[in-house]
Amino acid sequence: MTNRKYLTEYVSAFTHSLVNQGVKNVVISPGSRSTPLAYACMKEEGLAVYRQIDERSAAYFALGMAKASGEPVMLLCTSGTAAANYFPAIVEAFYARVPLIVVTADRPHELREVGAPQAINQIDLFGSHVKWSVDLPMPEPENRLDFLVRHLHRSVKNAVSEPRGPVHLNVPFREPLVLDFEQQYDSTGEITHLKGESRLSSSVEQFLMETVKAEKGLLIVGEMTEKMPDEFWSFIRKLNWPVLADPLSNVRSNLDENCKDLIIDSYDAILKSEVFKEVMVPDVVIRIGPQPVSKPLTLYLAAVKPKTFAVFDESPMMRDAQSVVTHHIQASTDGLWELPIGTKASNSYTEKWAAASELFWELAEVHCNEKLDEGVLAKVLFDELDSCDLIVSSSMPIRDTDTYFKSTSRDIMIYANRGANGIDGVVSTAFGVQAAKKRPAYLFIGDLSFLHDMNGLIASKMQETDLTIVVMNNDGGGIFSYLPQSQEERYFEDLFGTPTGLKFEDAARMYDADYAAVESKEQFVEALRTKKQKAVKIIEVFTDRETNVRVHRELWNRLIEELGGQ
Amino acid sequence: MTNRKYLTEYVSAFTHSLVNQGVKNVVISPGSRSTPLAYACMKEEGLAVYRQIDERSAAYFALGMAKASGEPVMLLCTSGTAAANYFPAIVEAFYARVPLIVVTADRPHELREVGAPQAINQIDLFGSHVKWSVDLPMPEPENRLDFLVRHLHRSVKNAVSEPRGPVHLNVPFREPLVLDFEQQYDSTGEITHLKGESRLSSSVEQFLMETVKAEKGLLIVGEMTEKMPDEFWSFIRKLNWPVLADPLSNVRSNLDENCKDLIIDSYDAILKSEVFKEVMVPDVVIRIGPQPVSKPLTLYLAAVKPKTFAVFDESPMMRDAQSVVTHHIQASTDGLWELPIGTKASNSYTEKWAAASELFWELAEVHCNEKLDEGVLAKVLFDELDSCDLIVSSSMPIRDTDTYFKSTSRDIMIYANRGANGIDGVVSTAFGVQAAKKRPAYLFIGDLSFLHDMNGLIASKMQETDLTIVVMNNDGGGIFSYLPQSQEERYFEDLFGTPTGLKFEDAARMYDADYAAVESKEQFVEALRTKKQKAVKIIEVFTDRETNVRVHRELWNRLIEELGGQ
Repeated sequence: MTNRKYLTEYVSAFTHSLVNQGVKNVVISPGSRSTPLAYACMKEEGLAVYRQIDERSAAYFALGMAKASGEPVMLLCTSGTAAANYFPAIVEAFYARVPLIVVTADRPHELREVGAPQAINQIDLFGSHVKWSVDLPMPEPENRLDFLVRHLHRSVKNAVSEPRGPVHLNVPFREPLVLDFEQQYDSTGEITHLKGESRLSSSVEQFLMETVKAEKGLLIVGEMTEKMPDEFWSFIRKLNWPVLADPLSNVRSNLDENCKDLIIDSYDAILKSEVFKEVMVPDVVIRIGPQPVSKPLTLYLAAVKPKTFAVFDESPMMRDAQSVVTHHIQASTDGLWELPIGTKASNSYTEKWAAASELFWELAEVHCNEKLDEGVLAKVLFDELDSCDLIVSSSMPIRDTDTYFKSTSRDIMIYANRGANGIDGVVSTAFGVQAAKKRPAYLFIGDLSFLHDMNGLIASKMQETDLTIVVMNNDGGGIFSYLPQSQEERYFEDLFGTPTGLKFEDAARMYDADYAAVESKEQFVEALRTKKQKAVKIIEVFTDRETNVRVHRELWNRLIEELGGQ
Repeated sequence: MTNRKYLTEYVSAFTHSLVNQGVKNVVISPGSRSTPLAYACMKEEGLAVYRQIDERSAAYFALGMAKASGEPVMLLCTSGTAAANYFPAIVEAFYARVPLIVVTADRPHELREVGAPQAINQIDLFGSHVKWSVDLPMPEPENRLDFLVRHLHRSVKNAVSEPRGPVHLNVPFREPLVLDFEQQYDSTGEITHLKGESRLSSSVEQFLMETVKAEKGLLIVGEMTEKMPDEFWSFIRKLNWPVLADPLSNVRSNLDENCKDLIIDSYDAILKSEVFKEVMVPDVVIRIGPQPVSKPLTLYLAAVKPKTFAVFDESPMMRDAQSVVTHHIQASTDGLWELPIGTKASNSYTEKWAAASELFWELAEVHCNEKLDEGVLAKVLFDELDSCDLIVSSSMPIRDTDTYFKSTSRDIMIYANRGANGIDGVVSTAFGVQAAKKRPAYLFIGDLSFLHDMNGLIASKMQETDLTIVVMNNDGGGIFSYLPQSQEERYFEDLFGTPTGLKFEDAARMYDADYAAVESKEQFVEALRTKKQKAVKIIEVFTDRETNVRVHRELWNRLIEELGGQ
């Protein structure tokens, strides 16, 4: 059957080119139309195959893998709404700049928009949320494989070029869909890619050399998904500015002990003090990475409007939600660390930041010994971690991480989905991170977010994994208690609290996961330290939304008081 | 605060206009940015509010409601990936022609594409899969409410005009988001809509009068979400053609006993006989509704290419995947039933179809007494139903319904998502149907499909419901065993069978659902007949994929033999 020959060649060239360009992992969801590519993936050496039944979870799994590995991950699904289920994770990948190669199988032209089953309009299905979308031709004798191969090269290079992101390949297949498994494939059409490097121009260097002279300067480090190079640490030691480190900056961990005094990890709390804010106005701010999580920091910068606020962003789509940036430096930060600055003496501005941070941690230690709420328990969790990855859900967990994750030299990498800050897909993202890093991982998540992606747990039935899931179960949407809506009792529980009364012991049993229910610090530590020989452990921590708000505010108010009253 | 005044007016006008235009139900997912509209929905008399935490499930719930009620249902969610989660159900609604008013809250312009949290590009978010998408202005003094109100009218009228479908309203809000609950709203800007009716033109009437004269004619009835009018039954009695009734046609139930011999419910099996197909070539085919589920019927029509194949479809996007339709009649079928045809005598063509169908059911009765597989158990289920709704999942359940649902005068309405035939969102669709119909409902679903939308079960914690879920658990993707892929052992279980080993007793416990595990007909009947005072019952039927294929084929082969051939 000639058809089968071309089909086999086509899909072999497809997967081979992707692997050739650095794709090592694929996440496949079962389906019929995608059969030829699914077979090719299984056959392809150098391609690890992961499977997920729910395509939404599959895409978030791929996102976690791609984010943690820094490498593009392939997704494959069948035609129809299967593909539409990828959408949330694709949107997240687009804004979080994570490279995904999204491959959707499609029906041939004669079965499109004619009422055929499982056929939807997949052309440009993901709209403006992919960097590139292409509808490939059918495997047919007339098609030149070298064209296909080069288009696949373009896809991968597009996905991994800054700003990185998802690309979409729509691939139509006509029946029959089964390959000739004996047929050999000889690589064809591959080309060599050579890439220039992004350096600072001399005018940028000049601007920066001038800028770093400021006494009152702040370096803000937003989300970084890779460990900082040694050059970063020697640069900030010389610079001697406070470094406001987002919980996702990954410079609060793997800390160079030499720079301990510079890493400010408690600014979210400190900047709740009006007195401190008034006194500590910076002259210069440099930010690398996206905007930090902290709302007090955002409000602070919006109020201060620093005269010089320089942001490094390789993309023209510079992130500046408050319109306060004054200089957009469109370049890699590598050049920043290489800047030939001299070692600057410490000054009182830097020292005051360090002192305020020290004060916070003194208060926090006492607070955590005496009190009990989600925040306190978050600190218990963080104190237990080492040589592992921590995945944090949006909403309250990321905020508690911001407040309670103290800088440490321990090796903990922290990840979260902050492209669009959704509470969806987080369980799968965690499994994806674990699959990429292949070491113990911890997921810190709220009950609604856990519920949203419980299907992520299917991963534990499909592959080896090592994930401890800490679910903060306050029976509903905890974050709303911190928002103005909570002042209005009317409809509050109906619309925002949305208690479900659900507990997750049964979910753990369904997925053969180890399980512990926890209400005290001691139980929590015990639960964190004991893990049976099981892939997944779910630790359900029962807390109370009202207590959480009250106890959080106690610590913040205590600090505000100590920093000299509001 | 002036802002609050305009905000309150705006959202009051919003929900009031929708209710004025016939929207009675809204499904809300919790979120912050959508707060003003959520409040307005709660306040609005005449609007019933349903809640779902998972937006994907929320949208499928709304789809089920809209499909079963025939009325547009509103969806409301916050900004960000929340909105993207609606996508699968929107695609389904577009192709299934179900009216949805999809409302996504958005951030104001200054927070779009600037790296602000939870802000994504929501303009035209659902691409070509909505009938209309509009980005509304912010609530501001300059905005004329009468413009807003008329745009809302346009939205609803657009959604309910043939071909019906989803429309998308993107609504930006600036903080603060809280309303003035005391403020009164005086209805403004509402207009009166008057609509013409679609009648048959005289040339169409003439064509039809000529066409129905054929002796060998077939009337095919595809999916119908409403009960047929009495005129349908008197028309087919006069016409005296075999009526091939899709399982979703809803003419296999609520059957007019007078027409019993005409409703052919077993053509999927009968048309597996080459001998029968050769002898029974029709001269004329008229189809109403979309293409039926049956693949043998599709193949039969494609092979026969009837000289006259007329399809009623009010949309220009006529559904004809095999390119065999000869006449597209763009009109409502009301005119068909009113056609002044005389009563035709029965003829041997019609009688042979009836005889073949009778033969099938004789064989099926014996088969079902002697054998046990998913199909046989499906028949056990159908025999138990009355005065209820049945929701059927894609993949094997819809096929087993096609084979084993025998026409009956009992009142059972059958629904399925056949716009794009996904296995996603089916649990929520079932809850939505139940919420619309407010009588007992049954969901017939496979294990992968159930797993995909287990979050649909949250509905049972949020509202009253009455749903019995029959999960056919064959541990994986059963349908693939019927496809060519099953001939290739290599990678079969990895890519297609995808066994998870999951059982659903724990899921039932988590959601406080009644539960029964079933392996025999007797157990199944017992489980169907006993329901504790609980909202949801999950009956898990354990079957085996290989047995299912073998036993299905035994019945088909027996019939083929009896019909005189291979």
